[in-house]
Amino acid sequence: MIGGSLLRAAVGAGFEAWGYNRSEAGAEAARADGFDVTGDLPAVLTRAAQTDALIVVAVPMPAVDQMLSAVATFAPECALTDVVSVKAPVAAAVQRHGLAARFVGGHPMAGTSQSGWAATDPTLFQGAAWAVGVDAGTHQQPWTRVVRLALACGSVVVPVVSEEHDRAVARISHLPHVLAEALALAGAGGGELALGLAAGSFRDGTRVAGTAPDLVRAICEPNASALLEVLDETLTVLSAAREVLAEDGSLADLTEAGHDARQRYYTAERWEISGIRPGDQDWLEQLREAGQRGGVITRLD
Amino acid sequence: MIGGSLLRAAVGAGFEAWGYNRSEAGAEAARADGFDVTGDLPAVLTRAAQTDALIVVAVPMPAVDQMLSAVATFAPECALTDVVSVKAPVAAAVQRHGLAARFVGGHPMAGTSQSGWAATDPTLFQGAAWAVGVDAGTHQQPWTRVVRLALACGSVVVPVVSEEHDRAVARISHLPHVLAEALALAGAGGGELALGLAAGSFRDGTRVAGTAPDLVRAICEPNASALLEVLDETLTVLSAAREVLAEDGSLADLTEAGHDARQRYYTAERWEISGIRPGDQDWLEQLREAGQRGGVITRLD
Repeated sequence: MIGGSLLRAAVGAGFEAWGYNRSEAGAEAARADGFDVTGDLPAVLTRAAQTDALIVVAVPMPAVDQMLSAVATFAPECALTDVVSVKAPVAAAVQRHGLAARFVGGHPMAGTSQSGWAATDPTLFQGAAWAVGVDAGTHQQPWTRVVRLALACGSVVVPVVSEEHDRAVARISHLPHVLAEALALAGAGGGELALGLAAGSFRDGTRVAGTAPDLVRAICEPNASALLEVLDETLTVLSAAREVLAEDGSLADLTEAGHDARQRYYTAERWEISGIRPGDQDWLEQLREAGQRGGVITRLD
Repeated sequence: MIGGSLLRAAVGAGFEAWGYNRSEAGAEAARADGFDVTGDLPAVLTRAAQTDALIVVAVPMPAVDQMLSAVATFAPECALTDVVSVKAPVAAAVQRHGLAARFVGGHPMAGTSQSGWAATDPTLFQGAAWAVGVDAGTHQQPWTRVVRLALACGSVVVPVVSEEHDRAVARISHLPHVLAEALALAGAGGGELALGLAAGSFRDGTRVAGTAPDLVRAICEPNASALLEVLDETLTVLSAAREVLAEDGSLADLTEAGHDARQRYYTAERWEISGIRPGDQDWLEQLREAGQRGGVITRLD
């Protein structure tokens, strides 16, 4: 779904783009819609090498290693990025395959609980935040190509290093999955009566528990250590709220702090990073610091 | 918001309906839209007594006692219902004020995070589940009036006794609030970077944390014991998931059980209760049992 949507968006933005899908049915569905997609990975990668293409790895984490093996064999000199939901494990795999020099990690913050070509949408990335790596040693040329692709798809770019990205998405993407699963269980524990009374708050709070379990695992498990950290933090918050509710009958602390936090999210405004040129001294560190403060890249001069 | 929406829906359904609001500005806003609303509670209740009206108490739990005092003074013989989010505490207050004989508890499962007349919506109740009490001792006549009102507003009626209602809504309404507050806090703990990367799962998972803290407290705190029970259950689920993730790196159990639970909710179908006539022998117990199994009342013959 992400890879196919990206293909649609890139072609729509004027890029010459083509794709590979291990499923012949998926490739056929894409071809039926007029896109250049095959199930022949060596051919696709050889063409990438011959045309100096930017390769985008759009598979779940468990399939990344196998894909990088093929890239190392057929197109080791190509610029390389990915759209996987964790960044440090992908960077480590890239390193193992000797592909680090031209790699820049990426993660568009967009998706649905659906998958497959039928769910692709060329507008999926419009207005989204697209995390792009600024880890030490990142090279200017592939970085610029990845940023141009993200901007061309309608996203804004959040510059971030791998570990900080993974800790952040544990909070705003992986924890929501874990809590949604737990809430769904609590609701179903109330039987038909509870599920029949459920309305908006339960529907919204459990929405992402509708995602296929294998996909949730592929997203969350590679980020286990960061997820454990924020899950422990949340267990502490919930246990403290439980104690105060039991002793004083009050949810004042939790609801006031939670409402403030939600307001902080709701009113957060993206601001445009300017004046940092790729390749300038300390450009990676400067971009990292701007990203930490909520800055985004909206254009490249 | 709930009371005003009900006034709009009831008038739209052909009832002669009027209202009281302690805020003169709120009453004035309703009058400006052509509705019969005043800030004179004795006058409104005296009129109710003179016309044998059905009184609907639509205030947060902390204000219920004061409202019932006025009802006991000015309209003690009227049929009485409420739209408060917990039922056992309201029933206890009704008992204290000597109003139990004509009381039938109610709770339309509909709402938004907004409040006040400007947020009223006559279609708010369409398609919603409206819990209506079938506690032992409920009288047929006021019960029938409450059910007719709910059906006229476009809802289906879920028959339920107070304690079972309160345990069910702890699971599907009050726990979602608590988890949303905790998730908002976890996200904000990641600073501007995390909030800037947040997308659909965080937005939906924190939506109800946008509700005013006082309103969340008024909804959840009167149901503390049922909320504590399911909160403890959820802390156990999350702690177990945390242990397995830490030891085996796996979220298989949680994601599979959570997905099954969400599917159970998503595919749950209301079925129509038929063949139980109000006033028949054991009608309350029969309706209670049907409600437990997901049955709803869609019409009264």
